[in-house]
Amino acid sequence: MSIDYIATPALILNRSRLTRNTERMAARMTEMGVRLRPHMKTAKSADVARLATKDHFGGVTVSTVAEARYMAEKGFTDIFYAVALAPGKVAPLAEIQNSSDARVTVLTDNIRALTPVADEAERLQSNFRVLIEIDCGGKRAGLLADDPALVELVKAIVAAPSLEFAGLMTHAGQSYGCDTTEEMADVAEIERRTIALTGVKLAAMGYPCETLSTGSTPTAAHAKSLDGITEMRPGVYMFSDIMQAHFGWGDINDIALSVLATVIGHRPDLDQVLIDAGGLALSKDRGMDSHAPHVGLGMICDINNQPINGIYVADSHQEHGIVKAAPGTSVPWDDLPIGSRVRVLPVHVCMTAAAHDHYNVVDEDENGVEDFSATTIWQRQNGWY
Amino acid sequence: MSIDYIATPALILNRSRLTRNTERMAARMTEMGVRLRPHMKTAKSADVARLATKDHFGGVTVSTVAEARYMAEKGFTDIFYAVALAPGKVAPLAEIQNSSDARVTVLTDNIRALTPVADEAERLQSNFRVLIEIDCGGKRAGLLADDPALVELVKAIVAAPSLEFAGLMTHAGQSYGCDTTEEMADVAEIERRTIALTGVKLAAMGYPCETLSTGSTPTAAHAKSLDGITEMRPGVYMFSDIMQAHFGWGDINDIALSVLATVIGHRPDLDQVLIDAGGLALSKDRGMDSHAPHVGLGMICDINNQPINGIYVADSHQEHGIVKAAPGTSVPWDDLPIGSRVRVLPVHVCMTAAAHDHYNVVDEDENGVEDFSATTIWQRQNGWY
Repeated sequence: MSIDYIATPALILNRSRLTRNTERMAARMTEMGVRLRPHMKTAKSADVARLATKDHFGGVTVSTVAEARYMAEKGFTDIFYAVALAPGKVAPLAEIQNSSDARVTVLTDNIRALTPVADEAERLQSNFRVLIEIDCGGKRAGLLADDPALVELVKAIVAAPSLEFAGLMTHAGQSYGCDTTEEMADVAEIERRTIALTGVKLAAMGYPCETLSTGSTPTAAHAKSLDGITEMRPGVYMFSDIMQAHFGWGDINDIALSVLATVIGHRPDLDQVLIDAGGLALSKDRGMDSHAPHVGLGMICDINNQPINGIYVADSHQEHGIVKAAPGTSVPWDDLPIGSRVRVLPVHVCMTAAAHDHYNVVDEDENGVEDFSATTIWQRQNGWY
Repeated sequence: MSIDYIATPALILNRSRLTRNTERMAARMTEMGVRLRPHMKTAKSADVARLATKDHFGGVTVSTVAEARYMAEKGFTDIFYAVALAPGKVAPLAEIQNSSDARVTVLTDNIRALTPVADEAERLQSNFRVLIEIDCGGKRAGLLADDPALVELVKAIVAAPSLEFAGLMTHAGQSYGCDTTEEMADVAEIERRTIALTGVKLAAMGYPCETLSTGSTPTAAHAKSLDGITEMRPGVYMFSDIMQAHFGWGDINDIALSVLATVIGHRPDLDQVLIDAGGLALSKDRGMDSHAPHVGLGMICDINNQPINGIYVADSHQEHGIVKAAPGTSVPWDDLPIGSRVRVLPVHVCMTAAAHDHYNVVDEDENGVEDFSATTIWQRQNGWY
């Protein structure tokens, strides 16, 4: 098989890069003395989860009920559903526990959310481990560590026959606003300290925390200490993307996922090339705009993953990617004939991957060249239910 | 059935609003003397296409090979695939023509793209109608109307035994940059005149254009004349969204599609509510930011589609929507208890709908109230192949 036979737009997953990324993070977490519970929201694939959990305890993190069910069906038994639980999602999670060997840990930050969850779990005769979400500065969900409601919530969990208090989690989303690895290390330290100290405080009150969980790829990559926490939940590191490379998780040669696209138009009058990967195939995430210009929705590489002269996807329509050259350069027309193939390195791989239902998986040979004669297909578990 | 039984996040499609939108556009196009060839890239649903083609000739526009195949399987016989054709997509389109009653019209703007397309069509013993794309100011794909390459391209199509020259098309994408309906009417006039005059010019040279096709929802909604063109291809008008309402295609009470979501978190300290529709369920399209502040990724309504106090989705994570109040107001906490349902009116419905694989379809009763006791499911044809 040749790369020419893959219909575009399509995801190409370089398993050699993926494996290097998963092994690197697994080793780093082992070295730092914590368990790795990889977040599968990016990959949504059991094949990827098997690589990511290697050399660790096998637990995974998921972002949807559909991922939880899929991972249970694929034999994963320790699943953390890391979005604050609404009562309507208790029934499908109970069904997953009842029909498989999986145990699902759930998340809450609010006693008013907890009560109907506990009632529903009891009605369904299911029992859930529960973590409490703490906000360590990400300003998304969670309780502040010093909020008196925290202890009330712990007590309510302990009191509920269908629930088991398992500990604390946080996600330092503010790491994505950092500009230097030093800043990310500082955020990682805030993340660690918030959870470790709150865990100590609760233990002293008689509520020991079996799980003290933190994590994002930037903080997992740059933390100087993970003392006092039990596990980390990074996810994007497996594939990486332009944003993670910018944040210092390897470099762009470590990005394992790209979008294969076909050149479908030339506009020499506008110094513009059109490709058949647009807003749907790449996503509309412009998360690099605040970090670097001339990245847009992705960097253009040749079919061997080598960047072409700094050209990038400047804009998109639904099925058109608008490729431009950075200021002071111009489109290398000879490299981009109509009908030729390019690869787009994604800006934010979670969003890009989500538009597709499968990966075309390739390995590198001993010379580091991808061998498309042995392409494998791995499916993704998209959707929510 | 109650709306409470629909798992979130989910698309709710109000068929009564949809039908009013499709009937209004169909009547307008009839009145203005052109055929309506609705663009199905937004809805990707044969059920919607049947409503949108009612009272017209039955032709549809699609944006992917997968949509073309699906529409052919559902009995649509006149299908225009409106993205510049790459040679690799000829084989599946030929198979669609060979295995159904459908005739697929394709698009080109480049003689170097055309030659391998013609060769491949001949090899597969298939025959395609071909339109040429003209750029009337949108600066995406297409030839400028006065480019000498246009006539060369027409001649090449006419000379190819596997191809049939069918005419011209354009898409005035610049209509999305307009601020007033007068500006949109001006863009519509440029769109009309460009195609009509180029058609006359080619006819005078012995190349009559059976099809002279224009269209976007803003230009279809605001054009003062469509004389000299034969058909229009708007698409978003069926569902509408905040952007189209802003552009004057009805108002927000005409938006037929919304995302049902559950309140999963309260952050009174940040005056912030969290819902379980994030970047995946809503998309990361921030297309309203350049037109209006405090719209973000969508407006929050109650379950009866009534906006709640101007609150909106200010930001998103993958599965979290961050709901904020506009400056000077604050979150109406009593309307948004944890576990309650809200509906999000989408900013750019094409991108929002694409994240989901089906619609929950409801009708209004005689009082204009949606009746969830008779919810129907309509599937979407996502993907590319």
